[in-house]
Amino acid sequence: MRLEPINLHDYEARAKELLPYNVWNEVESGAMDEVTTRRNRTALEALVLKPRLLRDVQHRDLSTTILGTPVSMPVFVCPAGGHKIAHTDGEKATAQGAGMSGTIMVLSTGTNYSIEEVAEVATGPVWLQLNHRSKDLSQMLVRRAEEAGFKAVCLTVDSPVPVPQERSIRNRYDHPFERANFRGMNVKTGATVSATGDPFAWRPDAARLTWEEIDWLRSITPLPLVLKGIRGPEDALLAVEHGVNGVLVSNHGGRQVDMTLSSIESLPEIVETVNGRLELYLDSGIRRGSDVLKALALGVRAVGIGRPLFWGLAVGGAEGVHGILEILRKELDRAMAFCGQTSVQHLERGIVGIPRTWGLGEYDF
Amino acid sequence: MRLEPINLHDYEARAKELLPYNVWNEVESGAMDEVTTRRNRTALEALVLKPRLLRDVQHRDLSTTILGTPVSMPVFVCPAGGHKIAHTDGEKATAQGAGMSGTIMVLSTGTNYSIEEVAEVATGPVWLQLNHRSKDLSQMLVRRAEEAGFKAVCLTVDSPVPVPQERSIRNRYDHPFERANFRGMNVKTGATVSATGDPFAWRPDAARLTWEEIDWLRSITPLPLVLKGIRGPEDALLAVEHGVNGVLVSNHGGRQVDMTLSSIESLPEIVETVNGRLELYLDSGIRRGSDVLKALALGVRAVGIGRPLFWGLAVGGAEGVHGILEILRKELDRAMAFCGQTSVQHLERGIVGIPRTWGLGEYDF
Amino acid sequence: MRLEPINLHDYEARAKELLPYNVWNEVESGAMDEVTTRRNRTALEALVLKPRLLRDVQHRDLSTTILGTPVSMPVFVCPAGGHKIAHTDGEKATAQGAGMSGTIMVLSTGTNYSIEEVAEVATGPVWLQLNHRSKDLSQMLVRRAEEAGFKAVCLTVDSPVPVPQERSIRNRYDHPFERANFRGMNVKTGATVSATGDPFAWRPDAARLTWEEIDWLRSITPLPLVLKGIRGPEDALLAVEHGVNGVLVSNHGGRQVDMTLSSIESLPEIVETVNGRLELYLDSGIRRGSDVLKALALGVRAVGIGRPLFWGLAVGGAEGVHGILEILRKELDRAMAFCGQTSVQHLERGIVGIPRTWGLGEYDF
Amino acid sequence: MRLEPINLHDYEARAKELLPYNVWNEVESGAMDEVTTRRNRTALEALVLKPRLLRDVQHRDLSTTILGTPVSMPVFVCPAGGHKIAHTDGEKATAQGAGMSGTIMVLSTGTNYSIEEVAEVATGPVWLQLNHRSKDLSQMLVRRAEEAGFKAVCLTVDSPVPVPQERSIRNRYDHPFERANFRGMNVKTGATVSATGDPFAWRPDAARLTWEEIDWLRSITPLPLVLKGIRGPEDALLAVEHGVNGVLVSNHGGRQVDMTLSSIESLPEIVETVNGRLELYLDSGIRRGSDVLKALALGVRAVGIGRPLFWGLAVGGAEGVHGILEILRKELDRAMAFCGQTSVQHLERGIVGIPRTWGLGEYDF
Repeated sequence: MRLEPINLHDYEARAKELLPYNVWNEVESGAMDEVTTRRNRTALEALVLKPRLLRDVQHRDLSTTILGTPVSMPVFVCPAGGHKIAHTDGEKATAQGAGMSGTIMVLSTGTNYSIEEVAEVATGPVWLQLNHRSKDLSQMLVRRAEEAGFKAVCLTVDSPVPVPQERSIRNRYDHPFERANFRGMNVKTGATVSATGDPFAWRPDAARLTWEEIDWLRSITPLPLVLKGIRGPEDALLAVEHGVNGVLVSNHGGRQVDMTLSSIESLPEIVETVNGRLELYLDSGIRRGSDVLKALALGVRAVGIGRPLFWGLAVGGAEGVHGILEILRKELDRAMAFCGQTSVQHLERGIVGIPRTWGLGEYDF
Repeated sequence: MRLEPINLHDYEARAKELLPYNVWNEVESGAMDEVTTRRNRTALEALVLKPRLLRDVQHRDLSTTILGTPVSMPVFVCPAGGHKIAHTDGEKATAQGAGMSGTIMVLSTGTNYSIEEVAEVATGPVWLQLNHRSKDLSQMLVRRAEEAGFKAVCLTVDSPVPVPQERSIRNRYDHPFERANFRGMNVKTGATVSATGDPFAWRPDAARLTWEEIDWLRSITPLPLVLKGIRGPEDALLAVEHGVNGVLVSNHGGRQVDMTLSSIESLPEIVETVNGRLELYLDSGIRRGSDVLKALALGVRAVGIGRPLFWGLAVGGAEGVHGILEILRKELDRAMAFCGQTSVQHLERGIVGIPRTWGLGEYDF
Repeated sequence: MRLEPINLHDYEARAKELLPYNVWNEVESGAMDEVTTRRNRTALEALVLKPRLLRDVQHRDLSTTILGTPVSMPVFVCPAGGHKIAHTDGEKATAQGAGMSGTIMVLSTGTNYSIEEVAEVATGPVWLQLNHRSKDLSQMLVRRAEEAGFKAVCLTVDSPVPVPQERSIRNRYDHPFERANFRGMNVKTGATVSATGDPFAWRPDAARLTWEEIDWLRSITPLPLVLKGIRGPEDALLAVEHGVNGVLVSNHGGRQVDMTLSSIESLPEIVETVNGRLELYLDSGIRRGSDVLKALALGVRAVGIGRPLFWGLAVGGAEGVHGILEILRKELDRAMAFCGQTSVQHLERGIVGIPRTWGLGEYDF
Repeated sequence: MRLEPINLHDYEARAKELLPYNVWNEVESGAMDEVTTRRNRTALEALVLKPRLLRDVQHRDLSTTILGTPVSMPVFVCPAGGHKIAHTDGEKATAQGAGMSGTIMVLSTGTNYSIEEVAEVATGPVWLQLNHRSKDLSQMLVRRAEEAGFKAVCLTVDSPVPVPQERSIRNRYDHPFERANFRGMNVKTGATVSATGDPFAWRPDAARLTWEEIDWLRSITPLPLVLKGIRGPEDALLAVEHGVNGVLVSNHGGRQVDMTLSSIESLPEIVETVNGRLELYLDSGIRRGSDVLKALALGVRAVGIGRPLFWGLAVGGAEGVHGILEILRKELDRAMAFCGQTSVQHLERGIVGIPRTWGLGEYDF
């Protein structure tokens, strides 16, 4: 009998066996030379845990709240468009998997099942991820999310222009399923340009997105607003000043602009700047419970996973997504015990050590 | 005629030939991604020796005492449960090998030969390693160790929860021999959970172990108490304050929580904090006499070996363990001569240099 | 249908298929052990982009001027002798490709088509690169460049002695085409020594080139003077003092002296020293639009490409050179959008971060 | 026709083809895990040259003096025992090769041709390397060197105990030729122990060598005294205080104690401490003219080569040794031109840059 996957690497390996070559590469690839995608992992592995011992860690509490919504653990499912490439139930399965694990799923704008279809089957809290194309479209999506009972709006702010994933261009990859939120609307969306250069593709107008739209979004909905893709303290500070509720520190898994810092390297300066005035989250490269613990100890409230949700879907649909989340839960729980921590809401900063050679410095001779 | 092993790498290579695949992996593996296991070696190799020359080093004295017990050299055998996987004589052979080299063996709680069986054949000093499960069990084991003439109790403090070695889970590895100290007691022990999830396995309750149990242990026995697994200065300081006699700085060979510092990187700050108020030892990654010298010069009284004892057992039983120890003795002796040192008890700190990029730093932009 | 090249790596791979082994190696090789050639890439990849978000980046202006000459983007074609090895139209094709992209081509002294032949077909601005051999020869070349309408003179200053590329020596490579600027003059030129040790080769006398010749060159022509190959702030300061108009910070793609800093590592101190008193450019290792952006943000006005022009020529003559340049334009444009920048002439320094471990330091124990 | 070797790597590759397996490994190997042997190269490659340009470098002077003896370039041949393993003419060929290049050969104690035999054919200056075994033997050797017209005595001080090269132990390597300086004396010498444990081998008594013997050596001969193997500033200072004339900073090519700094990393602090009070030299890892230039610019008067002399001998006897030296001369000459230097005796320190991450640091958290 084949062993169940025991870590996320196993899910990744099995998904690679199961998915078509071009889908696999679309999921795995990063932008350009994928330097940032690799850096997300090397930076996380270079951070060290500094365990505290001989404490009563029999009872460990992983539950927390994210913008007031209770979750069973500080790990959520990041937005990613078009889950049908990995499983026929697509985002419906993902939502169910997240719900089974008692955590949030962030539903993309460019999904294969619509806001309403997902809401109907979701058993846990859902957020709407928004690619802003125009005020009309955004308002329509936000209204539908409100009606569907979604808990927050998460606006992607790091995609002013499309970045082709070079692996997908080589594979002439084009997303094969409809973008369900726009069914019958004669538009196509999607943050990436189709590899075949489909002339009917609705071109994103995201290059005009500014803080003015942030203010406008704040004005049209009572839902909390999260910005996804912030990479530095200056923009995090502006988010504070514009009344944003949460910031997802993310480099999009290295899928947008290559050659940036890893998300985790960006984090400490952002934490210091924000100083608790909004909630911080992080994604890009999370593969182990110890990664979750490191990010939490450095100051985020929760972390998100992206590529792994496709691995879970490919391996087992909703159960696979749930399986991925439960492995992270178990690993985080264990890492907390080893580090003498009993609550994700009260972690000691001192359990994480930053390498001397990490990050940026001054340049002087 | 095949050459005798000339270094520990040779022993390792031969043990790999001799041991079953799953046993070999159980011995070699570290926790999770084995980042810490590898770091134990890279950090030791990055430390540099700074030889002093033109001194009379004809007579070199490697003998020392550990908690008052004379040993012929500052290398001892670390606790590791279940030696029968490498040799039918198990811990009896290990004890004899250590005795042949005039040094201490630390006997695990979860051995295949009992405290009494090992005591009967041991020719050198023996310590008891303790996995605390309950006061009753610990008291029973300590009493038996006292009666067997053991010299100290070494409590493992870094295993609040079981960490499956992932290689062993893949191999469905389950330790095949009885835990002799509990013969007839209808309990099973062991710091690791059986890969097959044996429902009869006695679950460790180590997650409740705190400094209260340390105080209690100090109260029930006149034997010196050593804590194994301390990783940082805060816990080392608490050990001082709780009257502990020795601290074994160890990351369990990277077999518990992954992503920590190497043991040797943890050492300098602990040495500074402890400031001579208890004895310090180190394990995790020692493979050469120069590693021993580096750790000693940085401030430990002795170092322990773990995986190599299994290599020695596999290759030659007691003679193999002895062979391993004698290679380290010879290499340490030679490294001392090269560095102008004549006594392990009076080493100069200046013979070890720490790389500029080593260890942790502040993070500022 | 084979995919068009989507990045410069594709051009490189196809050129390798197309070019004879010895020509390929002549193009690709660096000096000696090629440590510097590799370092040019590793240093650029280690620099990080620090995107600024939520700005209106719909309109991005890549146009700039170089010494007053308008160019459509801050990328030009570096001098490199003898383009016929990659395409039969040689420098004529290169000039046309550069012109198609609206940028400058720097024509070498040792070309296979003459100043006049290239001027006749060029559709964009051309500079003359000068290997100074004697005042007579330099004056003759400068006069012809003036008459041909060239915009500047770019003197190579880092080649006092010939450095054989070791790969080419092994291949007994000798440039197979005439040096057209000296047609009928009974001299041969070229910065490199022929591998076959051609006894008729005109030996460069560059080892006597000093600032005296710089002053002389300034005196004989109204054309702006650029020095190519400056590697440090002291010489850049001298360039300022001698009235030079521009400095091309370059290590010759690692093809002259091995074991230097990468060009990009040399840059910050030069920028600080020059302090805007002349224009700065950079070459050596530029392969991505993000590399261009990094160099610009650190303070250069434009960057040059060397080896890639041969890849473009080999793949498609003028169209290939144009293709290379257009890929860089597109990548630079995208990188600017991602970083919140709308004009290459007004980039923020803060979008580039320098690794803590980069560059040189003091040495103290 | 096969190409002549164009760099030292070529000589190395050809010597590997020509020499028996066990001889090749004896030549190439370092001590233990060969960490230091590799570090000698990586540290040299990490140092950077910082060229100065636009200087008249037409005339470059590589000649210098070493302890008053004129040499045509600052590269000499290091002592290494038993050259017959690479060429039947052994040290006679080496001495002739060094003489052809106008530089010093340092003749070992344990040579296959005697002091007198080498003196008879040598055409350049020769030094005696001394392994001190007893005052009688040392005095005898020094007297013979004086009579043979040798220019200095170079005492090896880093070999208090024998370090078997592990590759040679595996190969059961034993030096196959007589130690000619002791012909008919019923002793064998050599700094390394025979791998076969020859019971007649004369055991070195070097572990008793102290500064007392240095003073004694100074007293018995007017020849200048050089100490070979000094690794740090403390011992270099003692050398100054004991009236030593020169110090060869060396880690014996990594063949004695493993895990030390590279020689070049040890150098700056020694240079600072010695402050010109004696001459400094360096060996261990020199393979390129740029390596020579780096060491010179950091403060040594000359560098030595070890393993390469065997490569030269194997490839071409005296001509091969000469060939090796001439390649280094040509490379050094070229590197000087590139760096704007015209005399090895007046190099600018600023042409070498030390990486920020190089060397040792303080350890603090």
